[in-house]
Amino acid sequence: MKPATLKDIAKQLGISITTVSKALKNYPDVSEKTKFKVRTLAEQLNYVPNSFAIGLRKQESKTIGVIIPTMVHYFFSTVIDAILKEAESRNYMGIIMQSNEDYELEKKQVDLLLNKGVDGILISLSNKTRDFKHLQKIIDYHVPLVLFDKIAKVMDCSKIVIDDRKAAYDAVTYLINKGYRRIAHFRGDLNPQNSIDRFLGYKKALLDHNIEFDPKLVYLCDNNSDFTDGYNSAAKLMHDHGDNVDAIFTVNDLLAIGAINYFNEKQIKIPDQIALIGFSNWFMASVISPSLSSIDQHAYKMGETSAKILFNEIDCKFKGIPVKHEKITIDTELIIRDSC
Amino acid sequence: MKPATLKDIAKQLGISITTVSKALKNYPDVSEKTKFKVRTLAEQLNYVPNSFAIGLRKQESKTIGVIIPTMVHYFFSTVIDAILKEAESRNYMGIIMQSNEDYELEKKQVDLLLNKGVDGILISLSNKTRDFKHLQKIIDYHVPLVLFDKIAKVMDCSKIVIDDRKAAYDAVTYLINKGYRRIAHFRGDLNPQNSIDRFLGYKKALLDHNIEFDPKLVYLCDNNSDFTDGYNSAAKLMHDHGDNVDAIFTVNDLLAIGAINYFNEKQIKIPDQIALIGFSNWFMASVISPSLSSIDQHAYKMGETSAKILFNEIDCKFKGIPVKHEKITIDTELIIRDSC
Repeated sequence: MKPATLKDIAKQLGISITTVSKALKNYPDVSEKTKFKVRTLAEQLNYVPNSFAIGLRKQESKTIGVIIPTMVHYFFSTVIDAILKEAESRNYMGIIMQSNEDYELEKKQVDLLLNKGVDGILISLSNKTRDFKHLQKIIDYHVPLVLFDKIAKVMDCSKIVIDDRKAAYDAVTYLINKGYRRIAHFRGDLNPQNSIDRFLGYKKALLDHNIEFDPKLVYLCDNNSDFTDGYNSAAKLMHDHGDNVDAIFTVNDLLAIGAINYFNEKQIKIPDQIALIGFSNWFMASVISPSLSSIDQHAYKMGETSAKILFNEIDCKFKGIPVKHEKITIDTELIIRDSC
Repeated sequence: MKPATLKDIAKQLGISITTVSKALKNYPDVSEKTKFKVRTLAEQLNYVPNSFAIGLRKQESKTIGVIIPTMVHYFFSTVIDAILKEAESRNYMGIIMQSNEDYELEKKQVDLLLNKGVDGILISLSNKTRDFKHLQKIIDYHVPLVLFDKIAKVMDCSKIVIDDRKAAYDAVTYLINKGYRRIAHFRGDLNPQNSIDRFLGYKKALLDHNIEFDPKLVYLCDNNSDFTDGYNSAAKLMHDHGDNVDAIFTVNDLLAIGAINYFNEKQIKIPDQIALIGFSNWFMASVISPSLSSIDQHAYKMGETSAKILFNEIDCKFKGIPVKHEKITIDTELIIRDSC
């Protein structure tokens, strides 16, 4: 779809280009009614502010945009570290944005980055993102796009992921082979694909080993960046099942660490009374007591690979070479420590 | 000092502007000798690539540049979180760069940001930065500059810091009041001001309480982002002083956590045999076992305040209002937990 111009909008509404421009910039001397009309049409016509016309750009901006759900998380800060180092090595700069798991904000940030004329965009989607028009817009504007970690399968762009289902399957299989039978799962939000896949891997491992899947052993932790959530879920698990549970597989390390804190406090012995395996092998996993078994996602490698793919697509674009999108799966690794 | 132009350089060297431009861009068709001459003169004349002419800019770029030593650190990722949220609220974007504690890289990044035409720059200096010409260049170009956490006292710009000396003094005084007498210090690199100030606060607390300062109890941990450094220093401390030491004040939490790991492993009881206080109140401090007493630096507030000051200076600049530089000290807070 060819991007609309200010002129297109002005023509269709029968108002001046200046008024359209002012309306989009929220000037006080344009009525709210006009602003509403202009914005609605701009949205329909896939208008991106500023004259970002394809083919008219004469040179690279030497910047890339990166949108992540949150910065204050060991996984993402490591990914950003890798992306910035990769950018640095090519004299590129990184504009970093946090969606704070907010879909509307993510959408706005995509517009800002397109408006800024970045040469490429890397995104790890917010947990709330279920509509991908903003991603399609990036593709329509021929700006190289790479999705990583939290991706939208349907989008026609490169994607860098881990095999969440397999990683979860391996972790739970490890627990089963160690003799654990009543294995709970602290799962993440219902929406994101990686949370779904980890749950499915957990379930499949149980079924493949002839262990009954008990939905009552699955706890939804939708505020999954918060370790008090793990603490509270552990308390709830003990209340609900007491002795009739012997292990937990958590969707992330923070939940596991919260749970460990609860068990330490209540002098419930790990791994004798309850074993744990986390996910993402956060730095803390190795220094908490007892140390936490976890799945290493190789965050640095994910950031590095995503950036390399993006820069390759940017190079291809500027050289006029056709791009073949890639889907790369970064291997995970089960790290066994004292918690199981 | 008025920034030099390509023309100035070309004139002085008696070559064409095109050649100067090509030399600075490292084009292959310019001889190495010419490139060297051009670069040397450009450096002398304080030249910044691209036509970033003061007063010629017609509008804000709506971006700010941020240079930090490292991203993978709870303190800095929290600061960045705050800066980006503050920027977001003003429809600004943040270009984030990591110096990786490398002065040459930091210098280059300043040039890139000036070249990019950012509206303002926030920097926390690398531990290796002892020369501030690159900061002076920012000031010469009338680009608002705010230094935070790791600052250069001599620069004429706004600075946001904590009172490291007082914070360290309070922590060590707390230990003394609790009855500890042989207090070791795991100190940071010799160069950065905050590492010096924390050491001086430690020393002053001892002297003010008539406790002999024993330089043998001070361990230099120059690789201070690494928790194995804390582990190894704890081992060395036990080897050197055995029972003749009863507490440690560490320049950061990572060192303290490394030390706790060593003591847990050797079944040396905390706080009975040895007490600890860390610095920066990293998230992990509250979840390690035993939990670590630490000094909260209010990272979020530091990021938020730094960004607010910067945006205020940007506003003033664009409105032509004179700016009064500020020096703000963010209060710290001693958080007492189980380690002392």
